[in-house]
Amino acid sequence: MDAVEKANSGHPGMPMGMADVAYVLWTKHLKHSPANPRWPDRDRFVLSAGHGSMLLYSLLHLFGYGLTMDDLKAFRQFESHTPGHPEHCITRGIETTTGPLGQGFGNGVGMALAERLLAARFNTSEHQVVDHFVYAIVSDGDLMEGVSSEAASLAAHLGLGKLIYIYDDNHITIEGNTELAFSEDVGARFQAYGWHVQRIDGHDRAAAHKAIEAARAETSRPSLIIARTHIARGSPNKQDTAASHGAPLGEDEVRLTKENLGFPTEPTFLVPNIVRDIFNQRREALEPKEAVWNETFQDWRKANPKLAAQWDAMMSNSLPADLADKLPQFEVDKEIATRNASSEVMQKIAPEVPGFVGGSADLHPSTKTLLKECGDIAPGRFEGRNLHFGVREHAMGAIVSGLALHGGFRPFGSTFLVFSDYMRPAIRLATMMKLPVIYVFTHDSIFVGEDGPTHQPVEQMMALRTIPHLTVIRPADANETREAWLAALENRDGPTALILTRQNVPVLDRQKLAPAQMLRQGGYVIAGEDIKDPDIILIASGSEVHLALEAAKLLAEKGKQARVVNLASFELFDKQPASYRLQVLPPDMPVRLAIEAGITFGWEKYVGDSGETIGLDHFGASAPYKVLMEKFGFTGGAIAEKALELITR
Amino acid sequence: MDAVEKANSGHPGMPMGMADVAYVLWTKHLKHSPANPRWPDRDRFVLSAGHGSMLLYSLLHLFGYGLTMDDLKAFRQFESHTPGHPEHCITRGIETTTGPLGQGFGNGVGMALAERLLAARFNTSEHQVVDHFVYAIVSDGDLMEGVSSEAASLAAHLGLGKLIYIYDDNHITIEGNTELAFSEDVGARFQAYGWHVQRIDGHDRAAAHKAIEAARAETSRPSLIIARTHIARGSPNKQDTAASHGAPLGEDEVRLTKENLGFPTEPTFLVPNIVRDIFNQRREALEPKEAVWNETFQDWRKANPKLAAQWDAMMSNSLPADLADKLPQFEVDKEIATRNASSEVMQKIAPEVPGFVGGSADLHPSTKTLLKECGDIAPGRFEGRNLHFGVREHAMGAIVSGLALHGGFRPFGSTFLVFSDYMRPAIRLATMMKLPVIYVFTHDSIFVGEDGPTHQPVEQMMALRTIPHLTVIRPADANETREAWLAALENRDGPTALILTRQNVPVLDRQKLAPAQMLRQGGYVIAGEDIKDPDIILIASGSEVHLALEAAKLLAEKGKQARVVNLASFELFDKQPASYRLQVLPPDMPVRLAIEAGITFGWEKYVGDSGETIGLDHFGASAPYKVLMEKFGFTGGAIAEKALELITR
Repeated sequence: MDAVEKANSGHPGMPMGMADVAYVLWTKHLKHSPANPRWPDRDRFVLSAGHGSMLLYSLLHLFGYGLTMDDLKAFRQFESHTPGHPEHCITRGIETTTGPLGQGFGNGVGMALAERLLAARFNTSEHQVVDHFVYAIVSDGDLMEGVSSEAASLAAHLGLGKLIYIYDDNHITIEGNTELAFSEDVGARFQAYGWHVQRIDGHDRAAAHKAIEAARAETSRPSLIIARTHIARGSPNKQDTAASHGAPLGEDEVRLTKENLGFPTEPTFLVPNIVRDIFNQRREALEPKEAVWNETFQDWRKANPKLAAQWDAMMSNSLPADLADKLPQFEVDKEIATRNASSEVMQKIAPEVPGFVGGSADLHPSTKTLLKECGDIAPGRFEGRNLHFGVREHAMGAIVSGLALHGGFRPFGSTFLVFSDYMRPAIRLATMMKLPVIYVFTHDSIFVGEDGPTHQPVEQMMALRTIPHLTVIRPADANETREAWLAALENRDGPTALILTRQNVPVLDRQKLAPAQMLRQGGYVIAGEDIKDPDIILIASGSEVHLALEAAKLLAEKGKQARVVNLASFELFDKQPASYRLQVLPPDMPVRLAIEAGITFGWEKYVGDSGETIGLDHFGASAPYKVLMEKFGFTGGAIAEKALELITR
Repeated sequence: MDAVEKANSGHPGMPMGMADVAYVLWTKHLKHSPANPRWPDRDRFVLSAGHGSMLLYSLLHLFGYGLTMDDLKAFRQFESHTPGHPEHCITRGIETTTGPLGQGFGNGVGMALAERLLAARFNTSEHQVVDHFVYAIVSDGDLMEGVSSEAASLAAHLGLGKLIYIYDDNHITIEGNTELAFSEDVGARFQAYGWHVQRIDGHDRAAAHKAIEAARAETSRPSLIIARTHIARGSPNKQDTAASHGAPLGEDEVRLTKENLGFPTEPTFLVPNIVRDIFNQRREALEPKEAVWNETFQDWRKANPKLAAQWDAMMSNSLPADLADKLPQFEVDKEIATRNASSEVMQKIAPEVPGFVGGSADLHPSTKTLLKECGDIAPGRFEGRNLHFGVREHAMGAIVSGLALHGGFRPFGSTFLVFSDYMRPAIRLATMMKLPVIYVFTHDSIFVGEDGPTHQPVEQMMALRTIPHLTVIRPADANETREAWLAALENRDGPTALILTRQNVPVLDRQKLAPAQMLRQGGYVIAGEDIKDPDIILIASGSEVHLALEAAKLLAEKGKQARVVNLASFELFDKQPASYRLQVLPPDMPVRLAIEAGITFGWEKYVGDSGETIGLDHFGASAPYKVLMEKFGFTGGAIAEKALELITR
């Protein structure tokens, strides 16, 4: 068994190296409620260095979160509660899924921001119902990842003083000593961001306790405690080695380590009673905290019924029953970019959904996501709803996930569709955790125009569709954009990506076409449903639906009849019953042509063997978008021509 | 026309704000050769803030790079040489395509690293043939992006003293003042990484000159010059406004600005003779530099014929004619993970291809990409071939692109396939620039096993295939891995991603199966080509080919005959003549079943209407991989069963 084969048996080094600090944090500081892991005012603990999962599992076991000794023995086994990396949806008490480095760092910033936002909304001079810390253990890998740099800068900018991160400075990475690639002065770097920085010996428990106290006392800046530790601490032969990062110690070394630490060598899995007692005592000591909070909370509810109602709405993620009625309807024969329609819809969502907060990665004048009446979130001002993420897409992704993980928010994050690539790792984890976040991706095709190929998403739409359980919706016009927002808000089982145009598109006349509400099915016959035996089915999404409709008209002039299917969301459509899907795309109407201004790879399942697609298999070009439409064959005429060819061949 | 409509007409603010500094840099420092933009020892200039493209176009025009006044007038028009953002493949003198922020920052680090690597290889005590600087203009947006943090830390770690970045500190972003989201102490942050930092008034040309001199004199650390500038400098009404970031000044303001600057208001496009003279003088002054270098270079060639031959090989990116013979053949009936086979192949490539350098984002013990005999690249030691990128996938992507852009290298970068998401923006630009870089992505499916879904790529393979012109190759066994490496090295028109297994797979017996060289066609009939009328075609890639072969055997036992197609690379297969493709997948053999342990969305074009796929539409789970194979239906038996169902229905 070589080193990497072994690696798949776990990462013992970090749990051993961080045992002292984690012990101090969990037994002296962390405010939590094992009996009620959903207690809203608990401190959040994030293990950003997710490969040290056994550290967290051990603590959850010792605190009685329901992880049994058998669960620990089932480490890294199928359907166990102790998978290789901590998973939010699997194990009680896990605040966020971690493993891909840097993500937990960003999630924690989102959680600490949520705390400030809720505190600003709900605390009164008489009652403090929101008042907790967010702790994380972060590794050198977390700090090397760019997403952490982005999140750290923003956390300091916003003055998130209740964020306390402990850096496991063990000098060891997978390739060897951190000196191989990491020689920066981490403390000075975090001071430059505006963090409060302390340095301790990570095995000096008194020092750890004192440092956490000092970090808690520092309320205006996030805190980094740099804990110099020794990986695999206590192992006579593996301490301070890269070998212990990702490989088990082995039977002999486990025995030697236990002997070295004065721990009984048998049985293999053992928690001595003295240890049990310490954790039980802490658990008992914590119990009154939640009870006291509950009392305060009940008093606060009585004194502030309006706030309480808002609290309930935010915490339950509920929507007003009449939300759809409150959202704008758009008039026919106007031209409006779907990003602009989205802005109008968002202005109306904001007063109805108090947890609706978010922002853009320095692009709101373009993505149109500013909630105009709601004020900015800024240092010392947390009443607002608009976040300014800066040019930090990746941190934005991790932070909106953190807001959702904390509870109380329906967060959104926005940038150009092409830059969804920058935040993909965060989107993936949000999807895995089924977080109800909303991504607003505008400038959705080569029709961005003059900014050219670096800014033109060609493959991003399809690449997003490949992420399991991410719902991607690309509405065709303003009224469908309203429906898409409703679908996004009602989707509480995972993230939704709204894909919107930069360029104006007509508001479709629903007197003549199927209603915009049909978008909720993901795909629907927008025109020509009454045609019994169409010559062709044209399928399109977003702005290309207009071209398909135009092509259908041109075909009609030539005596050919087309059905037009608007396939705005693969995921919503695929969820419909087969009977509905077969009605929209009947197998006995075989000639199909799909149009999307991007990679059409993946559309084959809708067009079938005899069908074709009009798309792009190359990057775009810098030019006014109408020129590009002409040059790249995205006109009603070109589509009609291609359709004729298909019909007559 | 609203602000964003205007935005699509260019970004005038930055070119005006940085005109002073750029003027000083280009007329007093930059060593280049407009007549020969490929001069190997030129200084590199990167406009990381690519939205200020007109600054660079103006300089290229003034220096006579071939950009005419008409080209400038065709700014942002179809097929012009002046697209919205600078494009490496389009405009003479553009060192790298920029626009997506942070990428140019990382590319420049790669270029400066290339200079050090070449200097270590070729400079002698008598002759300096490699000795140049890398300059960049970077914006606040560049510095907010995580990729820059990663690259900056690594640049300082490696002591890249000839890297000189000038930060356009104009306090303005798209959303408003940088204070909205960016309040860190940039200078202190870069000092913490280990950079040499200076601060200047960006409109004080003497100060700029002095700062660049000082930066050049500092040879052990990269330099950041923080130039406080005023965006849209000279515009009476738009200076220091966010409006000038992405919107044109407008006709009136252009006139007012010209008047304010004492510049003739007519004609609209004008270079006064005095300006022409200054640039012509500088151009003439530069000419001898290349001539002198050429003399030194010829002397050096004569004195060092072996080095000269290596130089030629590296600069021309040529491969030895007998390379294939030098690479290992693997014995049948051995089990070997393709990542391990890849390692063996790489050890043999290294001595044959001197420009072959690269490394991993802190995972080489797992990705097996260490060139064992070639030594490390480390601070002050640039003779080696192995880079340690740290846990910085995104910077790795941008840096390997920089190495390729510089010239002289066939760089590779490696991480787990799932983390390709972290570097996607860099991969996209490498593909757009047609850079011959190689990505080695291992741990290529849920068969990663116990590390669980955070580490199991489900959608990454398909998501990579969506990027235009990226060649993705997933070999099935060790001998195909050798072929995949040959294909990657011979692909000089763009990047190649090699997708390799963590788990062992058998070395296939090519006596009984089609030869491994057939992989070069992307797809081929690996078994059952002689079967005239097969009952089914099984199609698979990578480790799943073994399952397909096993299923074919099981089917044969039941009297059903299967053809097995190994579809290792969609891109290579799609490039084959139609006649070949139809021979591999004949339309008259209709029943097809494709198997890939990931999202199979996109396979439809190979399986057709009546075909099916066995894949995953969900995230994986933490368990030993053989358990996962069983649970998720990736066994020969399960595939044979599904095939039977298809055959008999």
